[in-house]
Amino acid sequence: MAQSVVLVVGAGDATGGAVARRFAREGYAACVTRRSADKLHPLVERIRADGGQAHAFGSDARKEAQMVALVEGIEREVGPIEVAVFNIGANVRHGITDTSARVYFKVWEMACFAGFLMGREVAKAMRPRGRGTILFTGATASLRGREGFAAFAGAKHALRALAQSMARELGPQGIHVAHPVIDGAIDTEFIRSNFPERHALAAQQGILDPDHIAEAYWQIHRQPRDAWTHEVDLRPWCEPW
Amino acid sequence: MAQSVVLVVGAGDATGGAVARRFAREGYAACVTRRSADKLHPLVERIRADGGQAHAFGSDARKEAQMVALVEGIEREVGPIEVAVFNIGANVRHGITDTSARVYFKVWEMACFAGFLMGREVAKAMRPRGRGTILFTGATASLRGREGFAAFAGAKHALRALAQSMARELGPQGIHVAHPVIDGAIDTEFIRSNFPERHALAAQQGILDPDHIAEAYWQIHRQPRDAWTHEVDLRPWCEPW
Amino acid sequence: MAQSVVLVVGAGDATGGAVARRFAREGYAACVTRRSADKLHPLVERIRADGGQAHAFGSDARKEAQMVALVEGIEREVGPIEVAVFNIGANVRHGITDTSARVYFKVWEMACFAGFLMGREVAKAMRPRGRGTILFTGATASLRGREGFAAFAGAKHALRALAQSMARELGPQGIHVAHPVIDGAIDTEFIRSNFPERHALAAQQGILDPDHIAEAYWQIHRQPRDAWTHEVDLRPWCEPW
Amino acid sequence: MAQSVVLVVGAGDATGGAVARRFAREGYAACVTRRSADKLHPLVERIRADGGQAHAFGSDARKEAQMVALVEGIEREVGPIEVAVFNIGANVRHGITDTSARVYFKVWEMACFAGFLMGREVAKAMRPRGRGTILFTGATASLRGREGFAAFAGAKHALRALAQSMARELGPQGIHVAHPVIDGAIDTEFIRSNFPERHALAAQQGILDPDHIAEAYWQIHRQPRDAWTHEVDLRPWCEPW
Repeated sequence: MAQSVVLVVGAGDATGGAVARRFAREGYAACVTRRSADKLHPLVERIRADGGQAHAFGSDARKEAQMVALVEGIEREVGPIEVAVFNIGANVRHGITDTSARVYFKVWEMACFAGFLMGREVAKAMRPRGRGTILFTGATASLRGREGFAAFAGAKHALRALAQSMARELGPQGIHVAHPVIDGAIDTEFIRSNFPERHALAAQQGILDPDHIAEAYWQIHRQPRDAWTHEVDLRPWCEPW
Repeated sequence: MAQSVVLVVGAGDATGGAVARRFAREGYAACVTRRSADKLHPLVERIRADGGQAHAFGSDARKEAQMVALVEGIEREVGPIEVAVFNIGANVRHGITDTSARVYFKVWEMACFAGFLMGREVAKAMRPRGRGTILFTGATASLRGREGFAAFAGAKHALRALAQSMARELGPQGIHVAHPVIDGAIDTEFIRSNFPERHALAAQQGILDPDHIAEAYWQIHRQPRDAWTHEVDLRPWCEPW
Repeated sequence: MAQSVVLVVGAGDATGGAVARRFAREGYAACVTRRSADKLHPLVERIRADGGQAHAFGSDARKEAQMVALVEGIEREVGPIEVAVFNIGANVRHGITDTSARVYFKVWEMACFAGFLMGREVAKAMRPRGRGTILFTGATASLRGREGFAAFAGAKHALRALAQSMARELGPQGIHVAHPVIDGAIDTEFIRSNFPERHALAAQQGILDPDHIAEAYWQIHRQPRDAWTHEVDLRPWCEPW
Repeated sequence: MAQSVVLVVGAGDATGGAVARRFAREGYAACVTRRSADKLHPLVERIRADGGQAHAFGSDARKEAQMVALVEGIEREVGPIEVAVFNIGANVRHGITDTSARVYFKVWEMACFAGFLMGREVAKAMRPRGRGTILFTGATASLRGREGFAAFAGAKHALRALAQSMARELGPQGIHVAHPVIDGAIDTEFIRSNFPERHALAAQQGILDPDHIAEAYWQIHRQPRDAWTHEVDLRPWCEPW
């Protein structure tokens, strides 16, 4: 009880999981969520094996009632949420006339609306304490629309607007809101299986290691409040941009 | 029949209406929409009194089936949609913890999702013809998040991402997609009633005249295809920015 | 005497010349400058043949004394400068370690410092009249640095900062400062000779026609002051961006 | 000999000095420069007192021959330059018509041209080694022009273009180029003396502590090459932006 918490919404096998492990190593109780709690077991086991504390929550981040209950439950049962990380992506690619209304909505709901729900709920918890860090994971599509990416870029642009609006409002209240922009492929199982030639770049550090993204998140969190970062890009050395 | 059409989705008493009148003056059949067709009568009357052609459509732009039917119906009954203008706003201001999930969703649904539906449907109609102009009305919040504007800036950022993604995809197919950014108060009944001190600036041309916005839209439409504008700002001379 | 003047600094055979012709057609006395006045004769002849008024000035735009004398002389001998257009480019491409200090300086001096001199001098003349338009020609490199373009992008970024600083200062004084961004090849003799395959795109309107750029400049100038544009992009329909 | 070097061009009493001390603490030989070497003595003494290694160089960074000699001398006499930091500012504020050509040039020469000379010379040294970090200190004016800041914003925009062009060219060669953007007052003697009410914010961490800026620079340098930052903002929690 009363242990400081890092909440990671969207704790997959790459960035989200690595962030949870990084903060757990520093003594934070890692509260990790995915739609199905089952998939979180390997991550929780790994954190515990490393001597850390971890809790898995099956939670649909797009459902307001579930997000409210999640944040309240953690605050009550585990400890104050000191850091919250939103890490749900939904990268799809369709030409504009092939983008169904359902897909357009789903991508926004997952990659943006769920971020709004998390951001708002943790802001409510952090505000009375006058402290806390909220991180929203951005991507190249946060900054630029592109053929085939109307839905994904829309959601990421909107998430960026959320992060910026929250930073301007909550900064003066002591809450640090940041938006790291990941510009490049991340070393995940998905990339390994589907884009083997891309993954081969890993041999020369040409794709992002989730642990290094997590380190950047950690460094943002530990910044003293006179020198806070809101936006920062992370990109492999050989990535064209 | 077979007359070229300008479709204005969100034809209120300010920008949308002025755009419809401007294009009608050039011989386009103005097809104007709002949720309730009744409110469109004064606009339709005015266009007709000026010798133009106008058709009012009551249509909820957020409903896929209605948008599909609207575009199909116009193409079948009135003529080819040469220009489509998306002009629905939804400017609200709430601190982040006072933003309900319902408001956050509604603002996005009106100011962005409806734009996606219109953009996709008119793209389907224009593509086989290899020509057409699609305009999405932007705002300061399209470019910057701000305290109190998480919902509105989110929707406007997403709309901008849509416009940019569509421009990159459809430009090489002969369709001109643009995103004018209106940065300042517009001379509307709403501003007149609610911000009289702001409206007083009209005496010195300090707030935007809808007819001048419409003129800019017209100029964008008539650009030859070797010199197309995608983004342009419009701002009163004395506006701080 | 007392005829309104358009001053075009850097009136070559493409954009600058076309702008001078466009404004002359509207009744402005075109005062055009290049380092050597001789090269201006064809332009002056053409404007006069079309019934317009034109004056050629050999002037090194990088020399403060010459710019001061140019502006004073025009104001005294020809008429009030109503519009001033800065159009000197200096596009070179060198890797960073192959960029000599001399080149880096020269590019800035031509593409930026001369613009500062023109902007300042015409601002002095326009300010007491509370009106006028100042246009600085931008390029893709105004917005983005790129391999090989440290010098050119540096000068263009600095020119953009000048335009933006001047717009924010002079707008409230009635002077319209704008920065059109040309993103694509322009149909010039240089492109025709050196990049024939690129120039072949002209057949399908794939490169910018200087007359169409000039038209955009004219439209910016005639905007009423409640709806001024500061930045606008111009790009061929098929240009990748 | 052969000790890794951090070169800090513009090592004043604030950011530059703090960066030199931060890297010296990690074992780098700090080579610090100012126009007059005398003013560097307190910094050199302090680094040495802390057990670090430091060398002072009186050098006018705007003079090509001096910069060439500086970099060659350090590489020959002290060790390989592993990190180079450009930190010369020149913040002045004048309305456009009050900006002399001399001031406009001097500000660019100090805040941009000197950065080009440093960047080019260290790139020459680093390139054969396929490694190194180059940091250019940015400011709010790097991103936005503003009334009174035509000269300063021009220089900072140009420096940003340099950083971005170099990053895109040198990244794939193993050299990490970054551009931290400092958005807010820094706790310096200058602010203390001239803006006491602003400096009073230091009591609540409302202005940037140079040591915290230095820490951010250090973190950028130690990033593994699969996750490099090019641009990052640093801003006090209560700074309006």
